Amino acid sequence: MLAAQYVGNKGFQVVEGQMVAPAADEVRLQVGFVGICGTDMHIYHGVMDQRVAPPQIIGHEMSGTIVEMGANVKGFAIGDRVVVRPLDYCGECPACAAGHSHVCHKLKFMGIDSPGAFQNSWTVKARTLHKLPENIDLKQGALIEPLSVAVHDISRARLTAGEKAVVIGGGPIGQLVALVAKSVGAEVMISEVNQVRNEFAQKNGIKTVNPLEQDLDAAVKEWTNGKGADVVFEVSGVKAAIEAMTKIASVRGRICMVAIHSQKPEVDLFQFFWKELELVGARVYEAADFDMAIELVASGKVKLEPFISSVSSLNNIGSAFASMDNNPAGMKALVSCAE
Amino acid sequence: MLAAQYVGNKGFQVVEGQMVAPAADEVRLQVGFVGICGTDMHIYHGVMDQRVAPPQIIGHEMSGTIVEMGANVKGFAIGDRVVVRPLDYCGECPACAAGHSHVCHKLKFMGIDSPGAFQNSWTVKARTLHKLPENIDLKQGALIEPLSVAVHDISRARLTAGEKAVVIGGGPIGQLVALVAKSVGAEVMISEVNQVRNEFAQKNGIKTVNPLEQDLDAAVKEWTNGKGADVVFEVSGVKAAIEAMTKIASVRGRICMVAIHSQKPEVDLFQFFWKELELVGARVYEAADFDMAIELVASGKVKLEPFISSVSSLNNIGSAFASMDNNPAGMKALVSCAE
Repeated sequence: MLAAQYVGNKGFQVVEGQMVAPAADEVRLQVGFVGICGTDMHIYHGVMDQRVAPPQIIGHEMSGTIVEMGANVKGFAIGDRVVVRPLDYCGECPACAAGHSHVCHKLKFMGIDSPGAFQNSWTVKARTLHKLPENIDLKQGALIEPLSVAVHDISRARLTAGEKAVVIGGGPIGQLVALVAKSVGAEVMISEVNQVRNEFAQKNGIKTVNPLEQDLDAAVKEWTNGKGADVVFEVSGVKAAIEAMTKIASVRGRICMVAIHSQKPEVDLFQFFWKELELVGARVYEAADFDMAIELVASGKVKLEPFISSVSSLNNIGSAFASMDNNPAGMKALVSCAE
Repeated sequence: MLAAQYVGNKGFQVVEGQMVAPAADEVRLQVGFVGICGTDMHIYHGVMDQRVAPPQIIGHEMSGTIVEMGANVKGFAIGDRVVVRPLDYCGECPACAAGHSHVCHKLKFMGIDSPGAFQNSWTVKARTLHKLPENIDLKQGALIEPLSVAVHDISRARLTAGEKAVVIGGGPIGQLVALVAKSVGAEVMISEVNQVRNEFAQKNGIKTVNPLEQDLDAAVKEWTNGKGADVVFEVSGVKAAIEAMTKIASVRGRICMVAIHSQKPEVDLFQFFWKELELVGARVYEAADFDMAIELVASGKVKLEPFISSVSSLNNIGSAFASMDNNPAGMKALVSCAE
């Protein structure tokens, strides 16, 4: 079997991998497709080398088929098509004890903190699995993980039907957040500087603003009759978004922090007091978010095919990553990992 | 009748005031006692001159007795002892329409944006009134307004019995927040650099930390067995608190922003993502907060007498303000405004 190892400095090597027999609570999967995530791109650029310790097999947005099962695994069968919720939690810390294992104090993210899915065969705990229904193929399946991120964001923001939401940032996660927002009956506007991404959103019936060409605050005020946005999703990670988010939010508006801001930006806390704003952090997902994501796709409410920009073979993983660098408007590159 | 006008630059003049006959929906009050608020101190220092436009009668933490009533006023009688919820809202903007008139887009704060209570007689809309029960005297009554701020903060933070809360800043509002937190069954720790304020808190059975002498984060982690604080109230307005609040909050912790930070401090947004924190702004109060504040005092759950540091006559209002400048550990200076 083959496995792709990230070896540092934008490099991958495809090597003969080690097939891992499943322990009693594990299954071995034949990997189907694996998507390239923004975090994978960060790893590719070398900025997470301390955490991933190359050479390492990465990849976590995946689909696959069960080919081997441990003795204690219940509720699954050989041949089941599944996706993995790639979270390995301790089960004992205060967060796990409070039922929030997805933000476990000792959370290991599979594919970052432990070997991932860019290989023919992946052995994982059965508790991470969610079954795919017949009408979701393995290509779409590889996008259930990022869709679950979006479902979690909507849930954390408590977005409801009839509300107006602005999504700052129109990359894959921003676009998925917008689609899930629509699915709950909210109206959505994406703020994005890239014209191709804005056209992608418009094809999905989503209003867009390019904040380099148009005053975002004025556009939101006009759209909401002076009220401001009920909910703002900050998905861009840029400083200008931090300034915008407190401006465009309505009185009592909720701001959902999806992006990772590692630089401690200046935040207009006065607006939090003055408008009684809320800021809600959102990280990864819970089991229920995966269930909901699968339901949204199975029911046809969210369509994932348009997100798939390319499908490469595992042997060509290096060029698949390189192409993402050269095509910021591309939504989702998949790597086919089946033997 | 006498009225004290703020005339700019730490100056007051006590002049012959104008008694205002109540309109149909108004009452005229004989003012009892008026507390000096932190905002009044800001006005006194001249930093809000553009907003208050001196000479102006300020003051909004008050108690009084109804002495004259407009024709349409229902539910009150001459002689009723009352407090005023000093908010004048438009009733028509999106915030008012959504039931959040306390954060009205055009909110006028009585005593800042319109004449206040530092006078013998004050004429106000009847809709601002809350009746005092017999066992709350007019001195305690003057502290119902700041206590209502604290009640609102607890409500916004959704603090519940059994949770552990840290209050950063041990001034009057911070101390009241701590007492209301205790009243709902939470455990409370105050972080405060002033030793006299810490002793005041300790007399009320509240744990304290002086962050200049002790590592606040370590103290909170020890107190919470490594979990962190369920809720943090930022009441201090200092930059060090912004750094501390995201550190000491638990996974899924809520941070309630009570203080006014006009300088856009740097905020560790990464922690909002990583720990799924919430930041909730809190401004003034709603009618239900006044009702709850009165109930807390009437039932003896919160005792306000210890907060009263001094009582001055209206003629001595200037020295009452000056004494607050020279006594940062003093809790609440009252001005007696009865004729």
